[in-house]
Amino acid sequence: MKQFVGVDIGGTDIKFGIFTETGNILEKWQVPTDIGSQGENLWSQITTEICVHTDNGRSVSGIGVGVPGPVQKDGFVEVCVNLGIRNFNPREILGRVFPDKTIAVGNDANVAALGEMWQGSGQGYENLVVITLGTGVGGGVIMDGKIVYGAKGLSGEIGHMMVNPDETELCTCGGRGCLDQMASATGIVRYTKKLLAQKYAPTVLDEKEALTAKKVFDAARAGDKLAAHSVEHCLSFLGKSLAFVSYVIDPEIFIIGGGVSHAGDYLIKIVQEYYDQYSLLKKEKARIVLATLGNDAGIYGAARMAQKEKKGKNEKV
Amino acid sequence: MKQFVGVDIGGTDIKFGIFTETGNILEKWQVPTDIGSQGENLWSQITTEICVHTDNGRSVSGIGVGVPGPVQKDGFVEVCVNLGIRNFNPREILGRVFPDKTIAVGNDANVAALGEMWQGSGQGYENLVVITLGTGVGGGVIMDGKIVYGAKGLSGEIGHMMVNPDETELCTCGGRGCLDQMASATGIVRYTKKLLAQKYAPTVLDEKEALTAKKVFDAARAGDKLAAHSVEHCLSFLGKSLAFVSYVIDPEIFIIGGGVSHAGDYLIKIVQEYYDQYSLLKKEKARIVLATLGNDAGIYGAARMAQKEKKGKNEKV
Repeated sequence: MKQFVGVDIGGTDIKFGIFTETGNILEKWQVPTDIGSQGENLWSQITTEICVHTDNGRSVSGIGVGVPGPVQKDGFVEVCVNLGIRNFNPREILGRVFPDKTIAVGNDANVAALGEMWQGSGQGYENLVVITLGTGVGGGVIMDGKIVYGAKGLSGEIGHMMVNPDETELCTCGGRGCLDQMASATGIVRYTKKLLAQKYAPTVLDEKEALTAKKVFDAARAGDKLAAHSVEHCLSFLGKSLAFVSYVIDPEIFIIGGGVSHAGDYLIKIVQEYYDQYSLLKKEKARIVLATLGNDAGIYGAARMAQKEKKGKNEKV
Repeated sequence: MKQFVGVDIGGTDIKFGIFTETGNILEKWQVPTDIGSQGENLWSQITTEICVHTDNGRSVSGIGVGVPGPVQKDGFVEVCVNLGIRNFNPREILGRVFPDKTIAVGNDANVAALGEMWQGSGQGYENLVVITLGTGVGGGVIMDGKIVYGAKGLSGEIGHMMVNPDETELCTCGGRGCLDQMASATGIVRYTKKLLAQKYAPTVLDEKEALTAKKVFDAARAGDKLAAHSVEHCLSFLGKSLAFVSYVIDPEIFIIGGGVSHAGDYLIKIVQEYYDQYSLLKKEKARIVLATLGNDAGIYGAARMAQKEKKGKNEKV
């Protein structure tokens, strides 16, 4: 039986999963990310974990790796800002240890999109965009069943579309009014604090308590006026951005994941409303749904990427 | 010698070109579009023209057709608003007359993009976006050397991104602030008239004369303050929109065609400036250049599309 290993490298943990060809997960585990020695430790961590869990890779056909940064088509990664490592190619590094395995590499958001297409809410679709709402706003793009990399691996970085011309604060990218500043967990908290400072409306939210996006959504759902206004304002920019994405590549479905997506249908309803308003030309609107694989989307997608690449190679032979 | 026919269906004329495999144009001609009999005349026009010019198709390997409306992946066209025809598939219609030829169908803007990639300013690139600035703003998207169709053939319709929140007039799509309202020839004239009515600045432009985008650009280039302001304002939205496109699919190059693009480097400079401002995350910016095939991009691309499809089929065999 052919098995595929999916590896999802994050700033805190590296996640691993072993999958059958049909997408059944046989085992999953994670280890804390060790970014010492300019990233060298990371690779020995990954190879050791794979060897230990797969009898030195005996039953493994392919290994896929999701990386938190732009990945070029040949697997080369110029920089992972969060990990502080530069200029490496996991395909080459892992290829030296596992010379007879297919190694595939992709950006974590794109890989998560592939995971959702394989075993999550993107099943049955070939043209989809996955948006991750967490500390920032990330995105992965799949067209005709394949990851869209783009020239420098920067496809799907929709968090830095400057969609709010009224924004006065700076984004980490140096711009103003990025989607990231509005629709991320950080963005929702930031905007809610502004409204609290302005005393926009009476509210159950307390400035002195540590505010989270979850608290804001919970209050909004319970009818809190200030919280509801904050959520709607922030998500309106997400709806608008998805309309922009539609006008570029016209996907069948948008899948919303990441911590903020736990707000569920309440969130989807608002995003859909604004998406519809901004995509008037489109008679049949794209569907907007919640992701279902949660934090496992990355390992699913990484394994699937390796499987697809192996299949592609075999077909060429 | 294999030959490919490119057909570009427009509202006024149908353009035809016969090409060698290497992209040399052997003959080109055009006939006025006849949209009588619910579009039936159109197809007899096209088949007759091809038969007459190619000795009944004897030397032809494939025929490609560019259609002014959204085209689905199987060639189906739901509606061509400009032609007033609905629910047809050129692949089937032409396939009945030319059963042994490869027939390929694509949206005119996407097909023009393929033309520019083959023999125009997109040569050497595989990830590109072509923007056509004419009566409206159109767009064609190529990723990995292939046309991106999208779910309903609406990819590349960037003219209806609502990028100007300050717009008060309605767009044809029912929205407000679409790129189409700003950066098309019509949009530039419209905004210039607004400035004239406001007496924004002394100007050589005369409200009473018929204003054209060309006149506005000529005046702007000659130092006219009102014209220069109008052009910069209108094109700023194009630069912003291209940045949005970059964050979705990260193309290597943008190619600007259509009547307005005759404004040349003056236009490119402004668009590039605003594109750079709105795409801060991207260290290496996409190139922005002028199209070089002019009105022939469509026939080049249509022929190329047929050639690529034939090649794809042969490879599968």
